[in-house]
Amino acid sequence: MQALREAIAMYGQGLGTDIVKVDMFLNHRIDTALLFAMGEELAARFREEKPQIILTVEASGIAIAVAVARAMGNLPVVFAKKSATVVQSPDVAQAKVYSFTHKRENVIRVDKKYLPAGSRVLIIDDFLADGQACQGMMALCAQTDCQVVGVGIGIEKGFMPGGKNLRAMGVKLSSLAIVKSIEDGHILLEDD
Amino acid sequence: MQALREAIAMYGQGLGTDIVKVDMFLNHRIDTALLFAMGEELAARFREEKPQIILTVEASGIAIAVAVARAMGNLPVVFAKKSATVVQSPDVAQAKVYSFTHKRENVIRVDKKYLPAGSRVLIIDDFLADGQACQGMMALCAQTDCQVVGVGIGIEKGFMPGGKNLRAMGVKLSSLAIVKSIEDGHILLEDD
Repeated sequence: MQALREAIAMYGQGLGTDIVKVDMFLNHRIDTALLFAMGEELAARFREEKPQIILTVEASGIAIAVAVARAMGNLPVVFAKKSATVVQSPDVAQAKVYSFTHKRENVIRVDKKYLPAGSRVLIIDDFLADGQACQGMMALCAQTDCQVVGVGIGIEKGFMPGGKNLRAMGVKLSSLAIVKSIEDGHILLEDD
Repeated sequence: MQALREAIAMYGQGLGTDIVKVDMFLNHRIDTALLFAMGEELAARFREEKPQIILTVEASGIAIAVAVARAMGNLPVVFAKKSATVVQSPDVAQAKVYSFTHKRENVIRVDKKYLPAGSRVLIIDDFLADGQACQGMMALCAQTDCQVVGVGIGIEKGFMPGGKNLRAMGVKLSSLAIVKSIEDGHILLEDD
């Protein structure tokens, strides 16, 4: 996606060999126009899958999930939670997820009533790296007998195994930009 | 706001004397059409304040902040973070916040470069209870020499001190619904 490529080129920073820092426009400060353009592009790529629910995980997945949901005619968004709250229902689906960014294991959970059995679910996240968050959300869908009709991602780290593993499983995965490598602070993208 | 009042009446649950459970449409599952209607209503209430940045705090504030930002002509959204990440800049503003929902203290932080000095900031959050998160965001703005031009809230717990304290400070605060009390599981709202 051209607008995202340009934002990455202008504002993205590569740190070391594996960190893609895009907090200028995606996951700390949000460029709202770009966010909704990303939402429309992902919506177009998955429209024929006829999703009924957009599933993401807090926190930074929420913004792009909302943008996709808006572009798909106000689909409901469900965001899995990383911490139990005092108001949570006991009837939850849950899965363990190792966070690459935070270097720790989280349990993600969703109230089962928000993923009704048989629902067609589109998983959306801002990043795909080792795929743990995504596999965790797929596990939530398996526990609730929902069908994952696709996975839409803002930025995929192509040098990490998450995307490859999902494609090998036959998941319909589409990423708006795929990082090939990080070299001397530069983020190199695969061709669209 | 009528649509929000109706959603609270239909789907909200009062727990005990102080918990307003609205995770069916606001902070676990999101009713996307309602979310954007809330965003437009808050945008209308604060348009004359001419904000330049929408500030919120992860996680559940992000959705409504994005909706307000969209309605105000794609203003940038900055969301304060509750945990340090491996990619975070060392030049952060930070403030301590006690979370009523999670019963624990968090430090919220924002990269100072995303709140440039002199910016007109509109603080947006889904809930206002004791006002800790909001006071924390105001502290971030004070540290970065930004001007808080208003605070826009989805649901205010009118029986808790957050709103009263902010109004006493002269903050322009507007909440789309104010809960007067919780009685026998029912959420009673103040008149608009």
